[in-house]
Amino acid sequence: MLDLIRPLVVSNTTKIVLLSLDGLGGLPRPETGRSELETAGMPNLAALASEAACGLLRHVAPGITPGSGPGHLGLFGYDPVRFQVGRGVLESLGIEFDLRAGDVAARGNFCTVDAQGRITDRRAGRIGTEVCVRLTERLRAIRLPGVEVFVEPVKEHRFVLVLRGPRLSGRLSETDPQVLGKPPLPVRALEPAAGATADLVNRFVTEAGRLLHDAAPANMVLLRGFDQLPELPRFPEVYGMRAAAIAAYPMYRGLAKLVGMDVLKTGGTFESEIATLGEHWEAYDFFFVHYKDTDKAGEDGDFDGKVAALERFDAHVPKVRALRPDVLVVSGDHATPSVLAGHGWQPVPALLWSRYCGADSVTAFTERACATGSLGTIPAHHLMPLVMANAQRLMKFGA
Amino acid sequence: MLDLIRPLVVSNTTKIVLLSLDGLGGLPRPETGRSELETAGMPNLAALASEAACGLLRHVAPGITPGSGPGHLGLFGYDPVRFQVGRGVLESLGIEFDLRAGDVAARGNFCTVDAQGRITDRRAGRIGTEVCVRLTERLRAIRLPGVEVFVEPVKEHRFVLVLRGPRLSGRLSETDPQVLGKPPLPVRALEPAAGATADLVNRFVTEAGRLLHDAAPANMVLLRGFDQLPELPRFPEVYGMRAAAIAAYPMYRGLAKLVGMDVLKTGGTFESEIATLGEHWEAYDFFFVHYKDTDKAGEDGDFDGKVAALERFDAHVPKVRALRPDVLVVSGDHATPSVLAGHGWQPVPALLWSRYCGADSVTAFTERACATGSLGTIPAHHLMPLVMANAQRLMKFGA
Repeated sequence: MLDLIRPLVVSNTTKIVLLSLDGLGGLPRPETGRSELETAGMPNLAALASEAACGLLRHVAPGITPGSGPGHLGLFGYDPVRFQVGRGVLESLGIEFDLRAGDVAARGNFCTVDAQGRITDRRAGRIGTEVCVRLTERLRAIRLPGVEVFVEPVKEHRFVLVLRGPRLSGRLSETDPQVLGKPPLPVRALEPAAGATADLVNRFVTEAGRLLHDAAPANMVLLRGFDQLPELPRFPEVYGMRAAAIAAYPMYRGLAKLVGMDVLKTGGTFESEIATLGEHWEAYDFFFVHYKDTDKAGEDGDFDGKVAALERFDAHVPKVRALRPDVLVVSGDHATPSVLAGHGWQPVPALLWSRYCGADSVTAFTERACATGSLGTIPAHHLMPLVMANAQRLMKFGA
Repeated sequence: MLDLIRPLVVSNTTKIVLLSLDGLGGLPRPETGRSELETAGMPNLAALASEAACGLLRHVAPGITPGSGPGHLGLFGYDPVRFQVGRGVLESLGIEFDLRAGDVAARGNFCTVDAQGRITDRRAGRIGTEVCVRLTERLRAIRLPGVEVFVEPVKEHRFVLVLRGPRLSGRLSETDPQVLGKPPLPVRALEPAAGATADLVNRFVTEAGRLLHDAAPANMVLLRGFDQLPELPRFPEVYGMRAAAIAAYPMYRGLAKLVGMDVLKTGGTFESEIATLGEHWEAYDFFFVHYKDTDKAGEDGDFDGKVAALERFDAHVPKVRALRPDVLVVSGDHATPSVLAGHGWQPVPALLWSRYCGADSVTAFTERACATGSLGTIPAHHLMPLVMANAQRLMKFGA
């Protein structure tokens, strides 16, 4: 898809806004039979949906629950199955670690092992973040030949390990056996060039076990999701647009940076994100604006909280429309149904508004209404070509 | 798709008619909220839609605006992304130049350059066609070693360059830098075997500049879309049908010839096209009938003109039905919404009528109605297998 559209891209002065509501989609609450979107009062989104082309986005494949990384890559027009980003890299982005080309990053868990080295708790009883911070400081004493070692706390039992040096490879197997009663696995090289990196990581794990022997329940580490920064086509080059990301959470800023967007400084609230949008309106062609509250409430299983988050979002829609974008898109990176209290595999409502969108008969921004819309149920990475077309930024294909 | 169905094809005596309305799809006019199809009175198409399976065709990919070439290849069952035809070849077809296997064709523009050879107008102020004719005659004086040179006027500033000779290659870069203030680019070979052809073309451009030095504003040429006749699977062989094309415009006759259809002699009106259809009814199994007026009005941004063109078309539908085809298909090669005054990316309404089509609940032949039809929104090149199935010309796959 990217290869197909790249030679067709033309420049103009149109403005495009993509509003991404994290974990947007939901499911009906059994008591009422209505989803979060069907329960919330969202007059502004309903009006917008009435003037827009609506549909559902499937970010990865039927039945596959997307993480926020693949979810957003899909929204940006990248097929997330083709462009895979390891968890180690995503976790590094999430703490705004300055990951560089060639670094190998892994997601780490503190875990508990018994006297024989067998795992008894894969998450070390979910130690508090302050314990995590203390123990990662201890692990920073580890020295490995020829590489720099970074150990960064994340949250609770989670940390990030980064090795920086020449000729490293992220093609490594994981140490987490995914079951209790077994010792951590040694890391294996998944390609010949990864042998040296595997040896370094195994030395790190041995040293970590030694340094943590008295730190039960967090007396060992598990490492997985080894990867290096992927080579992704750069969004501004693919689409020929000056692109800006406005997001209060580090993970989403990191994803936007990964595809080459400018990450704008903004405050911690959606209100300040919208203010940032207005302040930089002239300087960019494309704006990705991220709203986190919907996902947070969904993850907490807080149906009413998600309804309230949707209503708060709706109140901001007029401020975005007042900027008079040429193309306005509202969608999300994945579903987070409150009844699941976690990400879901359900396709995600999307609306695309422009002068040329060809409004359909959908008059509400809900899962069921969007399922009848003229966009149909489409792969998320097909949305950006439609956005570009509606901005009249694509030449025709063939004569 | 073609590989899948080819071994399943069987012969019978059914008759199939594909009516292609060029630029069929439209968009609502802001004042009424109704598209051209929704505005036109089309009782015959409405009756046919009520008895047919309806849907929308997407010819290339979401958001991609098809040219007429890829649009019709899709209707004929060829994936237009896999079977790409260069602009030089399409332009040659459009003037019915007798392009032969091995010829290299390019689309030419007369342009204006300043005293330093820098482009100041990529279209030479859109000179009149009569100037174009005179200047192409001048360029015909150019002789190149070992090849024949053809320079054919098209319209306004556009012409076609064809080189005929042994061992030529169309894998050449373009001379148009696509910006003002720079000189035309030299042609580069995009494969080693194209080196000699690149040298010939560069000599042509140098000579053209010399011959046109006093012909301002048309004092230079730009060349692009170099290509040779593609090797396309032949329609009559793939589908096992005697296939005829009835089209008043050269471009569509050329496309049909490119896939091996017989091109029938016909008059310049749709009325005469329909008469031609009746006259050759017994001699063919499959008829492609092209209607141009819808596209012309759309390109002109003439909403009412397009509505009138649709109504004129509708009046001819009973004459086609009176021939009692076994399968009757009505669709188009791309949208040409009047509000865009050009081709559009919107999927195109399609109806497929046969005794076995399984009519859906669609009762109007419009964009919105067809979006709810039983065909769904499908790639255009999936239509022909459905047509063949409805003609009972495909065996089952597997035992």
